[in-house]
Amino acid sequence: MKVLKATAVCLVAGLMLVLPGTIGTARADEGMWPYNHVPVARLQESYGFSPTKAWLDHLMTASVDIHASAAFVSPDGLILTNHHVALSSVQRLSTPEHNYVQSGFLAATRDEEIPIPGSSIKVLVSIEDVTDRIAGAVQPGLSAVAAQQARDNEIAAVEAEGREQTDLQCQVVTLFGGARFDLYRYREYTDIRLVCVPELQAAFFGGDWDNFCYPRFALDFAFLRAYADGKPVHPASWLQVDPNGISDGDLIFVSGNPGRTERLKTVAALDYRRDVVYPERLARLEHQREVLDGYAARGPEQKRRARTYDFFMGNSIKRTQGELNGLRNPALMQKKTSREQALRDAVAADQDLAEAYGSAWERIAAAYDWARAHDLDRRFRSEMPGSRFCGTALQLVRYQSEITKPDGERLPGYHEAELPSMLRRLQSPAPVYKDMEEVLTTDAFQRLLDGLGAGDPLVQATLQGRTPAAAAAFYLEGTRLDDAAVRRGLVAGEGRGVLESTDPLIELARRVDPLLRAAEKAFRENLEAVEDEAETQIAKARFAVYGDRLYPDATGTLRLAYGRVAGYPFATSLVPPFTTFYGLYDRAYSFGDQGDFALTPRESERRDSLDLVCPLDFVCTADITGGNSGSPVVNRDGRLVGVVFDGNATSHANQFVYDETDARSVCVDVRAILQALTKLYDAQALADELLRAEPPGGGEHTW
Amino acid sequence: MKVLKATAVCLVAGLMLVLPGTIGTARADEGMWPYNHVPVARLQESYGFSPTKAWLDHLMTASVDIHASAAFVSPDGLILTNHHVALSSVQRLSTPEHNYVQSGFLAATRDEEIPIPGSSIKVLVSIEDVTDRIAGAVQPGLSAVAAQQARDNEIAAVEAEGREQTDLQCQVVTLFGGARFDLYRYREYTDIRLVCVPELQAAFFGGDWDNFCYPRFALDFAFLRAYADGKPVHPASWLQVDPNGISDGDLIFVSGNPGRTERLKTVAALDYRRDVVYPERLARLEHQREVLDGYAARGPEQKRRARTYDFFMGNSIKRTQGELNGLRNPALMQKKTSREQALRDAVAADQDLAEAYGSAWERIAAAYDWARAHDLDRRFRSEMPGSRFCGTALQLVRYQSEITKPDGERLPGYHEAELPSMLRRLQSPAPVYKDMEEVLTTDAFQRLLDGLGAGDPLVQATLQGRTPAAAAAFYLEGTRLDDAAVRRGLVAGEGRGVLESTDPLIELARRVDPLLRAAEKAFRENLEAVEDEAETQIAKARFAVYGDRLYPDATGTLRLAYGRVAGYPFATSLVPPFTTFYGLYDRAYSFGDQGDFALTPRESERRDSLDLVCPLDFVCTADITGGNSGSPVVNRDGRLVGVVFDGNATSHANQFVYDETDARSVCVDVRAILQALTKLYDAQALADELLRAEPPGGGEHTW
Repeated sequence: MKVLKATAVCLVAGLMLVLPGTIGTARADEGMWPYNHVPVARLQESYGFSPTKAWLDHLMTASVDIHASAAFVSPDGLILTNHHVALSSVQRLSTPEHNYVQSGFLAATRDEEIPIPGSSIKVLVSIEDVTDRIAGAVQPGLSAVAAQQARDNEIAAVEAEGREQTDLQCQVVTLFGGARFDLYRYREYTDIRLVCVPELQAAFFGGDWDNFCYPRFALDFAFLRAYADGKPVHPASWLQVDPNGISDGDLIFVSGNPGRTERLKTVAALDYRRDVVYPERLARLEHQREVLDGYAARGPEQKRRARTYDFFMGNSIKRTQGELNGLRNPALMQKKTSREQALRDAVAADQDLAEAYGSAWERIAAAYDWARAHDLDRRFRSEMPGSRFCGTALQLVRYQSEITKPDGERLPGYHEAELPSMLRRLQSPAPVYKDMEEVLTTDAFQRLLDGLGAGDPLVQATLQGRTPAAAAAFYLEGTRLDDAAVRRGLVAGEGRGVLESTDPLIELARRVDPLLRAAEKAFRENLEAVEDEAETQIAKARFAVYGDRLYPDATGTLRLAYGRVAGYPFATSLVPPFTTFYGLYDRAYSFGDQGDFALTPRESERRDSLDLVCPLDFVCTADITGGNSGSPVVNRDGRLVGVVFDGNATSHANQFVYDETDARSVCVDVRAILQALTKLYDAQALADELLRAEPPGGGEHTW
Repeated sequence: MKVLKATAVCLVAGLMLVLPGTIGTARADEGMWPYNHVPVARLQESYGFSPTKAWLDHLMTASVDIHASAAFVSPDGLILTNHHVALSSVQRLSTPEHNYVQSGFLAATRDEEIPIPGSSIKVLVSIEDVTDRIAGAVQPGLSAVAAQQARDNEIAAVEAEGREQTDLQCQVVTLFGGARFDLYRYREYTDIRLVCVPELQAAFFGGDWDNFCYPRFALDFAFLRAYADGKPVHPASWLQVDPNGISDGDLIFVSGNPGRTERLKTVAALDYRRDVVYPERLARLEHQREVLDGYAARGPEQKRRARTYDFFMGNSIKRTQGELNGLRNPALMQKKTSREQALRDAVAADQDLAEAYGSAWERIAAAYDWARAHDLDRRFRSEMPGSRFCGTALQLVRYQSEITKPDGERLPGYHEAELPSMLRRLQSPAPVYKDMEEVLTTDAFQRLLDGLGAGDPLVQATLQGRTPAAAAAFYLEGTRLDDAAVRRGLVAGEGRGVLESTDPLIELARRVDPLLRAAEKAFRENLEAVEDEAETQIAKARFAVYGDRLYPDATGTLRLAYGRVAGYPFATSLVPPFTTFYGLYDRAYSFGDQGDFALTPRESERRDSLDLVCPLDFVCTADITGGNSGSPVVNRDGRLVGVVFDGNATSHANQFVYDETDARSVCVDVRAILQALTKLYDAQALADELLRAEPPGGGEHTW
């Protein structure tokens, strides 16, 4: 009883630490910290632990960017991430005869590890502050748009120089809306192979129902391996597993790539999301899921094809709903409003600050008024009409035209630093199911017609007098872009093949491109540029008032979060820090061992040989968001104790405000992974590789 | 997946059945039905099952009223109820040497079954409609107060006649606020013995955290036995156990004694509860718990003494909070408002109805305006100042004065039919812990002083110039009412000993009695009598508009509820219909097997000999409320499949509106009881008694 009461008190204390008195600066376990700005003093204060530069460098360079998160976990390039991160690859490698999604996969030897077409990962090697150079390129007195252009030119120049100096990828990362710029250098690997994944049923136990929920009983892990020149890579750093795992209350670190947060957005920006963007997005996603369900109901093969899409749809819906709940949560939004007001008051009280930055909030509010008045453009003129696959045609058309321009003048997404991964995606041999794309495209066309009316130029350019269904059939049945070789041909020679293409989807993209560009340009100039420039000012004001011990919003780049293993109070009861294999069997049998709660044959047959007390999943307070899936969780020794795979439902509000009352990151325990490898999957060699891996330096913990 | 989706659809369909189109009449699995008004046709329609009169009589006469709920489960008078229903008895029988609360208890032979002092149960034998006679006693044109007096006189007369005719207890039950009166006849048993209880830790696993929650893993059962003339009773009816239990979706019945609902209260009455009564009650309970926690922290013996109180406190707080949540739930209250408006519109549309009943709602609203203006009287002048134990003194004083009056003119609680159980409680040898009562009394006196001020006559009569602490010490240290023999002496001879008593608590009660009576009388006349009379009219209006297929609010008497075993959607996931023993071990180990989530030694040691797949608890849609604890759950064959022990958090709103979206009754599965008896408690003889019990008639299911 005492232990539990202490936990509850501790949680309340945690909550108090982020109340108004501390507005503007991060407290508790808040923060997704760039590796060059880790709050060491605060860590020492909260947890009595100061990571050294070597400790941080080791974790940073063992972390893997896989368009989600991952880590090297052996000297032979073994990579640990989530099953759901690898799922689309597993899906691509599956056939009706070998459905690895259903059966799971284990390469008995390295020869059996399967190359994943179109895959790539990158590892962050160094960070360099280039703020002075980028900011210095902007002459005083420029308009917002001109200033943005000047910055973009300088960023392109810095990245180009970086590429010339080394064989590393270079990317200038814009932080605090443009108040800080860092040059990130990456090493890339493009031969990634599938080593081991559990059955989807075990990895995603509880299905859509349990997604974003906790307690949870999922084995959401996957092993891949990086190769170079046909041989396993020997990375500079890798994480050693701690087979003893972690305990309640212990300090943990999470290293991963949170995609995007909007913590520093103004209240006006959040009001716009709450009133305009999120309700519409949620309704659209829910409708698309129904459409996809209808397609999946046609048969088992359609169901298999729809599976990946379906997963991301369910995922997106719960996330969107959770974020909307956060936006509609009066307590959280009051916290936002108080913080903003406190900063504005502080700025207003200082004449210099007031003059420099005082009007920034009003300018943003006015820009959102403009955006509300142009919402049809946001909804319909910001992407290629049709399914996501149709967007490939627009990318091909724009690729050809954009790369003829100087880097700084290109559309977002077509800068030199962004091209390699875009080109890989464009040429990916991942199968395209034209029948499914047609169903989704028909629906998208119908939505376009309903939204803009038959007389709208974009609708006319798209449908050309056809019904939505007929138009979708025309484009999808006529296109050859589903063939990766065709796309490769169009990309070749700087995309000049696109100019002569008569593929109906390419022709559609050519017709709609100018219409979309006009709308996108208006949004960039009237909303984004204004907001970027004003946010830069607000960020400077924030530095001036609170100092620079702040963390920037997530931008998809590598961040370090920290926290502790901790349960939480929920719905009048208490949620435990850990779950066990006992719980897996309870939840399965309590639903009659069927549907989303069915056990796999291995889980059923080997039940009595498992150590059921073994922890399965756990929760911690580390500050994460979408993109952190697959992030390694390490202890003070920098040793791996788990893998992040989810956030609970309340954590969605973290998009806008961190609050550790009941928001948690959900992780697979490394002990569960080891037990699964040895007792469920007969993957003893893999377990041995994990446990045998000695840290660099020959067994000494030098970091 | 399909199975689960079907469940979800079914739940939604259930919800739709209680939407506005059906206002005024019960739908779905709603209703706590008196045994003489079971909705057989609706049961046939919903579940294809029509219970016969014999089926109903059997279940009715096997049901046991134990100031909560219970049932006979063997021909030898064995009674099954909840551990928490028996807890105060177990507490009373425990000593520091033999702490059965902690260790559990099993009588190895019948000789070892321990008599519970002051205990009694009763069994409902028959129901007779006496509406015409009671209603006929009220002459037209009487004032509300005079009409109530006339009814009370006639009720007393009917009960007195009943007692003369048989040796059964007789009680006239007022239903629909006085639109129907039924005479209930009971057989009483006063020698009840303890047979078997699990350890508190097993019965109340998860403690206060998991109370009113689900999924749940509690063995909340207890066995008692009724004796008469020193021998086990052979009841007319008992329930046979079905060792196969029940399945998801199956029809079940719950027979028990729901205490009090307020479903038929007007919106004005609920507004008063939401604004005035509940917030104050919740704050008071939370404060009292803190006071009790402070007392319990003094040492292990104090902790033991506080335990029972503490349980009821935690229980009351969660329930009060849940009910307040219901009152504050806009969707639920909208349902109430719509139903009321629909009935008022129907009444207004019919001239006769409008004339007879049209003003009833306004009269109630006016009465609540009066009550709001007199809230200090409700808060402080409706009960004896001090702890609950101090109330004993007031009961003794009032007993002496009330029994000199004709039955119909007495205060509520002192009518002839109510005296036996009151006298048993007054003379109960249950231990009184004066140090704990002094702490609680000091707090109550302080609250009184803060609320009314030092100049108030009630405060002066109570404190007589002392501080709250000094006054509490004076009364508690001076009183001898903690000695059951002293109380027995005061009760004897129609309580005349009270007249000469100089016990300080008795003297306090004599001083405050007239002050409380005045306030209570004002509330009875200005609120209760007005509301009763207007509610009777509204009930008649409801009969006129919707027919008589309605169920009355719960009044603590025996009711039949029905429903089905069903999980529910909760917080973006799905809650299963059953839990298993696997889940018990998961929840224990996931919290580190400690505190409220610790396993008992038996559960730990015998873990591997249990069948962990065995269902432990389950949820069903049957409509219950406080008082239903211990209710038998039976299947179509009338065989026992479980015991109700709780409702989930959302079910608290059932106090005002039934809604089966996510409100559920929580039950122990009979299979869990059988497994616990045989494998945890070595109580094979008890399991045999349950399984051997043949139905009356020699093995034939005649009902």
